[in-house]
Amino acid sequence: MSTISIGQHLINRLKEINIDVIFGVPGDFNMPLLDIIEDDPKLTWGNNANELNAAYAADGYARIRGAGAVVTTFGVGELSAVNGIAGSYSEMLPVIHIVGTPSTKSQAAGAMLHHTLGDGNFDVFFQMSSMIACASAHLKKQNAIIEIDRVISQAVLSKRTGYIGIPIDLIHCEVEVAEIESLTVTLPKNPAQTQEIALKVVTEAITKASHPVIVVDGCVLRNRCEKDVQDFIKRSGFPTYVAPMGKGAVDETLISYRGCYSGNITLESIDKEIHQADLIIEIGSIKSDFNTGNFSYALDRSKTITLHSFATIVFCAEYQKVSMMEFIPLLTASLPKEPRVFDLGPRGKTEPIKEGTEITHNYFWNKVPEFMDENAIVCAETGTAEFASLNMDGPQGTTYITQILWGSIGFSVGAAVGAAIANRSRRVYLFVGDGSFQLTAQEISVFLHHGLTPVIFLLNNDGYLIEKLIHGPDRAYNNFQMWEYSKALDFFGANLERNQKAGCSKVGFQGKVATRDQFEDAMKDVQANPDKIHFLEVIMPQFDAPRELELLVASSENR
Amino acid sequence: MSTISIGQHLINRLKEINIDVIFGVPGDFNMPLLDIIEDDPKLTWGNNANELNAAYAADGYARIRGAGAVVTTFGVGELSAVNGIAGSYSEMLPVIHIVGTPSTKSQAAGAMLHHTLGDGNFDVFFQMSSMIACASAHLKKQNAIIEIDRVISQAVLSKRTGYIGIPIDLIHCEVEVAEIESLTVTLPKNPAQTQEIALKVVTEAITKASHPVIVVDGCVLRNRCEKDVQDFIKRSGFPTYVAPMGKGAVDETLISYRGCYSGNITLESIDKEIHQADLIIEIGSIKSDFNTGNFSYALDRSKTITLHSFATIVFCAEYQKVSMMEFIPLLTASLPKEPRVFDLGPRGKTEPIKEGTEITHNYFWNKVPEFMDENAIVCAETGTAEFASLNMDGPQGTTYITQILWGSIGFSVGAAVGAAIANRSRRVYLFVGDGSFQLTAQEISVFLHHGLTPVIFLLNNDGYLIEKLIHGPDRAYNNFQMWEYSKALDFFGANLERNQKAGCSKVGFQGKVATRDQFEDAMKDVQANPDKIHFLEVIMPQFDAPRELELLVASSENR
Repeated sequence: MSTISIGQHLINRLKEINIDVIFGVPGDFNMPLLDIIEDDPKLTWGNNANELNAAYAADGYARIRGAGAVVTTFGVGELSAVNGIAGSYSEMLPVIHIVGTPSTKSQAAGAMLHHTLGDGNFDVFFQMSSMIACASAHLKKQNAIIEIDRVISQAVLSKRTGYIGIPIDLIHCEVEVAEIESLTVTLPKNPAQTQEIALKVVTEAITKASHPVIVVDGCVLRNRCEKDVQDFIKRSGFPTYVAPMGKGAVDETLISYRGCYSGNITLESIDKEIHQADLIIEIGSIKSDFNTGNFSYALDRSKTITLHSFATIVFCAEYQKVSMMEFIPLLTASLPKEPRVFDLGPRGKTEPIKEGTEITHNYFWNKVPEFMDENAIVCAETGTAEFASLNMDGPQGTTYITQILWGSIGFSVGAAVGAAIANRSRRVYLFVGDGSFQLTAQEISVFLHHGLTPVIFLLNNDGYLIEKLIHGPDRAYNNFQMWEYSKALDFFGANLERNQKAGCSKVGFQGKVATRDQFEDAMKDVQANPDKIHFLEVIMPQFDAPRELELLVASSENR
Repeated sequence: MSTISIGQHLINRLKEINIDVIFGVPGDFNMPLLDIIEDDPKLTWGNNANELNAAYAADGYARIRGAGAVVTTFGVGELSAVNGIAGSYSEMLPVIHIVGTPSTKSQAAGAMLHHTLGDGNFDVFFQMSSMIACASAHLKKQNAIIEIDRVISQAVLSKRTGYIGIPIDLIHCEVEVAEIESLTVTLPKNPAQTQEIALKVVTEAITKASHPVIVVDGCVLRNRCEKDVQDFIKRSGFPTYVAPMGKGAVDETLISYRGCYSGNITLESIDKEIHQADLIIEIGSIKSDFNTGNFSYALDRSKTITLHSFATIVFCAEYQKVSMMEFIPLLTASLPKEPRVFDLGPRGKTEPIKEGTEITHNYFWNKVPEFMDENAIVCAETGTAEFASLNMDGPQGTTYITQILWGSIGFSVGAAVGAAIANRSRRVYLFVGDGSFQLTAQEISVFLHHGLTPVIFLLNNDGYLIEKLIHGPDRAYNNFQMWEYSKALDFFGANLERNQKAGCSKVGFQGKVATRDQFEDAMKDVQANPDKIHFLEVIMPQFDAPRELELLVASSENR
């Protein structure tokens, strides 16, 4: 037997699941844990401006590296983070929320401490968080090691959030342990006979189909099986589409890639292709309103095969527990070696740029990819940017971070911080509207603090555009104070000598662009300076909206 | 029978409890309710920058007007607000949290909507919020009117938060009602015989005491019985103290007012007076750690009478349900007409200003009241400012807004917005540290948007001072990016023509002050321009701390 401190074991486990940055805000109940983090040369402390932003950052980070973690303090800090955590739960990101809680002694005494409701109940916040976690624990000395392992492995396995409350006195508390084995996060095996039959049925259906298509969705990204799916797409040769939440899961330079399918907001030619299909193979689908053009998918279930993490469904027949992660490689292996060839003509594209000098959505989303680097990370804010990016032709290897299901405005700013620090070799492009930006603007400071170099597009159309389109276009409540957005990097201290000495990002382009010429000039600057942070306040006409957003809103009216 | 829409009834009830500003952020599930608010000439929409700040604003507003309300949207918006709501619950402010939820039809169908966890459960957020509310309801058409009345009256009666979820289709839904009576929020009568005996016992104890003292605490403010307490103090003539959470409940110009008592962080002479007393009358006490010098009150219970909202306790004997609100006027009436006279010498004061040019805490908190207007509202941020303000000699009629029990950093900025708009004739002085400011800085924009004219002191000591004193003074996690704080008003658009035309505040002093001369010059400007907003970035030595904070931290180490 040897000993280890509970806090150290927790941190070790986070490192095992590929975490090297831990987000959060210090508080008097969590600081000993932050000592462990700060003293570990392989770890970076997130140093976020507030807890909600920290949770968003952990989410963005998990989308790049597979898991994320955020540390907050009891009551005040943890509750500030819950919207971000619920978002990770909803959108299936394994984010571990670690909360420093009062000492075991104070809790046992029911002391009337700060950060409590004043009623001696130390379990209420744990209970609240348990409702948005797949596993949760408020640690006790006797089972802390087991509980830490249980919460983390369950979160990683089920791609959901986990909650760990750790009383401050337990952080440095040494406990005896047998030799610690590495964390086992193993998917259960699919039931062999069920899988065998499913494979036979699916292979037959595929062989018979004359116009099969594949629609790839978000659970492929969450389960990180893009490569297996890609192999299936290549080997089959079937025309392939992504749902909005699946964008980025498929290499868009593949010859069989045809674009984004999302019910009635789909580009016309793509919609036609899908509805001509006699077999639809959905992979990892998430049938939420905004992922399906407000439930306008209307695909014929008698022609649909669904490959999912929890089941394989063939024309309404469910093969339970036949998970795509094991199933897809078998399916690929069962296909003929030569891919089938389909000639569907040129791929559906968005309307080309119309003439003008104003920066309209039609211009912007067509133009901006020309200036982007390969392996980009696009963070597109909930609302306008998210819908506009669906049909964006991003460069090869682009990852798209959006929150189509949870849809919390302000998310993209924090998520972009997490994504940028998760992989400094990939360039982050943040697209955020003025309304959303106001919720989480201070996180710009955190990009700077860590010397990160994203390209930030503040799309300024003077108000909450998506809200105006849904309800009350002329309402005062859909408008707010205009800020001098283009001075954000200055305000957040980019040019202070003290910050520069401490490793703050160097500033590249910072300013307003109101015409296409101004935009293109600025983007040349952006391209030429990949080692700097850039902030473009892009002035757009107030009621101009991307086609996809307009269609989506129109369909919600008819619901 | 007549009809009324459910949304209109809800809004009417809020107006009945003295609410004329409703805080919040628009979302697609709450906008029809915002129409009703915007169309009502007697109501103002808060237009907050995010939901947490909106909740803080509703809290600050409730501290001035007796009740507050905040409107958010399902899931994302409401969860962002919960830290603020829990704070109002903990600190006993009746804030009504109103959440626009998906339509009854979508909820019944368990639709996979945006802002959900994707599992068809539409009750999870209601359940989470129910844990931090004294009453909660997710409205149904058949009992909406009764439920609205129940939640609001219970919140007002018990000085706790209430939660009302309203499905979007019910907002404009007309329901039949009999004649609607005004909301009845009547305190239950004290039990007559118990009260009679308690009165006799308390009167006898008072008559016998040779050195009685009164300690007034936070529940006096929450129950809004300051006037009755003041009458008791005046009529008795007894030396009177406030606990930190009771600061502002007693007119500090009263001859019998002696200062703030808070266990071992109390000024020495005051501590001596309290411990010489042979009778201590505590009114509305809240015995939390930071309100009692970390539980160092150590007052002899055999000498203590406690007057509370739920009981009267005389030397450990409880007279249950004998509430101070009914009891205190009876007690006052039972006293002799002439107040007793006590000569305790000059009142205990903080150490006078030491020589120097730097803006130390010793200088600052002694000096700043000289420049303040009567009937000020002081919002002192959790941490340094809150403890420093305990012994501040504010001008007559000053109200102090702090969060000594809940202690959420960043609170003061939002709360100051709520307080400022709750009574535009009183001047708000916001004292906030650089660390706390970063959490909620965007709410400065909301002061400007509403044309509010607070005086903002950004106390810049380069890091989380209170945290450094508690743990890790040299730790990187207790430091963060330095901002150009003094440019905040510019950044948030104060000088944009568009905003100025829309009623944005005019800017008075805006800049850094690093010496006493600079500070005093700036304050002359502040005094001369009460109709403007002022922003002073006050540069303070990095580890300088108010005496009270140092003592408190020292006592937490010994716990």
